[in-house]
Parts: sequence; C-alpha cells; structure tokens
Amino acid sequence: MSFDILQEKILAFENPTVVGLDPLPDYVPAHIMDKHITEKGETLEAAADAYAEYNRALIDALCDIVPAVKPQSAYYELLGHAGVRALKETADYAKSRGMYVIGDVKRGDIGSTAEAYSAAYLGDVTIGGRALAPFDFDAVTVNGYLGSDGIRPFLDTCKARDKAIFVLVKTSNPSSAELQDQPVGGRKLYDVVGDLIAELSKDTLGRYGFTRAGAVVGATYPEELAALRRRLPSTFFLVPGYGAQGGSAQDVAGAFDGKGRGAVINSSRAIICAWKKTNNNGYDFADAARREALNMRDALRRAARFN
Amino acid sequence: MSFDILQEKILAFENPTVVGLDPLPDYVPAHIMDKHITEKGETLEAAADAYAEYNRALIDALCDIVPAVKPQSAYYELLGHAGVRALKETADYAKSRGMYVIGDVKRGDIGSTAEAYSAAYLGDVTIGGRALAPFDFDAVTVNGYLGSDGIRPFLDTCKARDKAIFVLVKTSNPSSAELQDQPVGGRKLYDVVGDLIAELSKDTLGRYGFTRAGAVVGATYPEELAALRRRLPSTFFLVPGYGAQGGSAQDVAGAFDGKGRGAVINSSRAIICAWKKTNNNGYDFADAARREALNMRDALRRAARFN
Repeated sequence: MSFDILQEKILAFENPTVVGLDPLPDYVPAHIMDKHITEKGETLEAAADAYAEYNRALIDALCDIVPAVKPQSAYYELLGHAGVRALKETADYAKSRGMYVIGDVKRGDIGSTAEAYSAAYLGDVTIGGRALAPFDFDAVTVNGYLGSDGIRPFLDTCKARDKAIFVLVKTSNPSSAELQDQPVGGRKLYDVVGDLIAELSKDTLGRYGFTRAGAVVGATYPEELAALRRRLPSTFFLVPGYGAQGGSAQDVAGAFDGKGRGAVINSSRAIICAWKKTNNNGYDFADAARREALNMRDALRRAARFN
Repeated sequence: MSFDILQEKILAFENPTVVGLDPLPDYVPAHIMDKHITEKGETLEAAADAYAEYNRALIDALCDIVPAVKPQSAYYELLGHAGVRALKETADYAKSRGMYVIGDVKRGDIGSTAEAYSAAYLGDVTIGGRALAPFDFDAVTVNGYLGSDGIRPFLDTCKARDKAIFVLVKTSNPSSAELQDQPVGGRKLYDVVGDLIAELSKDTLGRYGFTRAGAVVGATYPEELAALRRRLPSTFFLVPGYGAQGGSAQDVAGAFDGKGRGAVINSSRAIICAWKKTNNNGYDFADAARREALNMRDALRRAARFN
C-alpha cells in the first residue's frame, strides 16, 4: 500500500524526511537561470526549464538519503503551463530515482470536481480510447473544508490506484488557529477533521497500520501534534514547518508512534536554499542541499528512533 | 474596482449569470474532439486543443448576453500542462470578448505559498528583468481553512492589481454541513469565515458598496444564503449550485440585495452541455448554450430585479 511503500523507504534510510521542492526564481543559482534565459529569453518557459534542471540536480544529490520529495504546486503554477510541465518532469524524474512523490496541491472541491482533481493527480483520464495519467503522483494533499464529498473521490482513486492523500488537519502557519482551533462541542475543529478522515478511511489499513487518508499537522504546534498522534493512531502524518518555519527535531518527535513510524517531516527552503549560506554563488547548491539534508536526518535520529 | 466592473456588466446585461466553463472529454461534441485527435493523436494536447475550440465558440455565443465566465481549474488540470495552457487561452479569449473571468481554483495555503498563488493567478512574476502575468484572471476563488495568513496575500494582490477574490463560506455540496455548519459559540463556522473576510477586507469598498473579498455561497441552501446576505451586506456573492446541482431562480433570489445587486449566479453543465438534449450530435452546441443561457437570464429576471 502507498503509505507502506513510504514507510519502508523511511525505515531503509532511517530518515523520515521529505524535501519540499518549492522553487522561486531567486532560489535557482544564477548560472542555471542565466543559461536558460540566454536560450529562451526572459520567459516563463526559460524559468521552468531552470526549475527542472535545478530539481534534477537536487534529486540526484538527495535520492540515496531522502525517501521522498514534495513539490509545492503553487511555485510551478506561478510559471503558468510551462511551470506545470516542469512540475510533471520533476515528479517523473524523482520517481525514476526511486523517490516517493507527494504533490502538495491542497485541492478540495464538490464531488464531481474532486473526482476531476483526483483523476488528474492520482489517476487517469481517457482521451479517445486511451487512458493517460496526467501527473501520477504517489500522494497529494487535500483541503477538507467541503466535507466528505470532497474527500471520498480521492479515497476512491487511492484504492483503485494504490495511492494516498494527506488532508489538512492542523496547519503550520501562525493564523491556523483562527478556524482550525475553534471549539466545536468538546473538540477543536481540527479534531473534527481528523476524526472524519479516520472514519472515512478506516477500511484502508496497510501493513504498518496506517490508512490511505493521512493528515497534515504542523511542526510549529508540537503539543497539538503529539495530541493528534494519540487521537489518530492509524493516520499517517505529513509534518510541515520544520526548519525555516521554526519547527525543531524535538518539536516533531511527538509525530511518531512508539516505533518511530507514521510520520514524514518536510523541510523546503532550509535544504534547497542551503547554498545561500556558503558564499559560492550557488555552484555548490546540490552539495549544500545534501549536507543540510544529512544534518536534518541526524537531528531527527537524535530525537526519535525509526525501526 | 474589480467588483464594480462585474456589477456594471451585470447591470448592463440585466443578467447576473456566470457560465462555468468546465469541460470534460465527453462534453465536447465528437466532431470537435475527433478533429483534434486526428491532428495530434489520443493525447492530452489534442483534448486541450478541443477544449480551447469548444470554449471559444461558447464564449462567442454568450459574450453579448452573459457578463462573466468561471473556468473550473480542475477540468483543465485533468489534461496536465496542456490543459493549463487551454485554461489560459480560454481566459484570454473571454477577456478579449469583454467578459469578466473568475478562475475557480479554490487555492489556500500558508502565507508564502498564498503569495505565490495570488501572484500566479492575479499578479505577476519577474523573470530576469521582466514582469510576466501567468494567468491574469479578474478574480479567483480561495479556500480559507488556513485563516487570515492564507487570505491576506490575495487581498494584497487584489489591491495592487485591481482584482478580487471569492472565499468559500457555505458551499453547495450535500456534505458542506459536516464542517461548515459546526456550531462555534453562537455562530456557525461559515459565519466565522464570512465575518473574517468582511473584517479583513473592510478597507476595500468599491462604488457599489462591496469589498474585494467576496464569498462563495451555494444556491442549494437558500435559507443560509438569504441569512448570509443580511449578515454580510458588503460582501459580493458567487453562487454555485444553480441548474444541474438543483438550485432554482427562487432559491437564489435571496443572494441579491434590495437593488438586485451583489451576487453572480453560476451555471455550468446545464448551459455548456445543453446540446445533449437537442439530438443534433453537438453540431448546435453553441446555439443550445445560448438558448439555455437566455432561459436562465429570464428566470433570474422573473425572480429578482437588477438595477
């Protein structure tokens, strides 16, 4: 099952890290961006080609120590359809290097539209007589504000195609409390969402005891994170907010179960922009990323055990 | 201001309709799809070209009677980057024919990512020394589950670029109550979201008295719709759920203020698939769409006055 594959990669590397591939024009070292601008001008296409090259080198530098990548769709959509092409190329390349690919798309819509999103990112579409998989990610993030109608179509695709989702439960940003922490009966709203996805996915348990509906829970709220771990023992967690957003290895320790399983911790800028701290004009961006990823892995190993 | 422009188009046409351009492969008449498959094979590119052609003809047939279109991004993303190209071509063509374009993307994320989404859909990105607008929609839909961090970056772009947003408040789908109707103190959660966007946008009033932060409120919950109209007098409403989803002209009458202003009503399938009921194999799809759009306009005129 999809999360079994992710859990196995984590155990094999003793590293529960997912690297966020979230490029912006000034994250890409100038020598790469300039090369593509020389080829295609100051265009979205040039920047998209630069993102794809930058990501390929990051993936090459990370794929033997990091089990997963999480491209954030926003940064590719910022380059229009050329960026979306680079997103697909990046995902395909990461999969070819053995990495698990989480598409951070945070989609959520009414039933018929949720079907289209789940087919787009996890399934396929039939054109003429041919089934084509537009993105074929291993997992995607989902926004559950529309309730179960917006989540079930994704779970149906997950079952049919051996995929998984992470639904937003308690996000890492400063204002996440405004709606998510609202008291609802004896629960917080994020508990209601967590309980809902546990119920919707209870018939999809994998070998490690996790269902196909994971949860996004931020590293920046360590108490809520630990409480949700206890509340949702069968829910795999995607934990953003480590590193640049302020979360530490100690903060995320509570995301794991007693065996150090059931969570993957995301870091983006701290790794992909590590070159900005080495004063080498970005020529060492891949090495700098690998070094920072090893630092993160070692910090996580000190905070928890993965076996 | 952005909603002033929309309101003026609505008043000029005496028609508060937005047509959802939400294609699927079998919504496109066979003679169009087959032509493109003959040219480019059974590919995502062929289907995307077919969508673009279908949409252009729909826009031509509607642009003198309907003020706005709302392409639902999911259906374009289902064709990968080729579909996203067709989305951009569709939006550009609709604007060239004088229509207001609402990108139904329902994005929502943490602050830095919300900035990327708002720049992508409403603003621009600088590549080298050149500012490029990837989509340049007039307005987009936003999911507010992350709280004000996820909404403010869109409002900042709205102010800088004269754009607008619609935040999901009470959606049209059957399960929308599961989270949105949860009681929070003396309010429903959807009231909390509505009050939040009214507060965040209160310094952005336009000539007709509406702010840049509109709300999505479904036609399928007419009582809640009328109550939200009273609660949020300065909030422009985007009302999905008319037609194929079951909402009637009477159901949406409560969306308008005393002058018949402040709301736009969406219909998608009932208009763009009207050809399926005429037994002409889709050769009359544009005429059938126009006829159905006129029926909807006339039904809305009977239910409310727009002046």
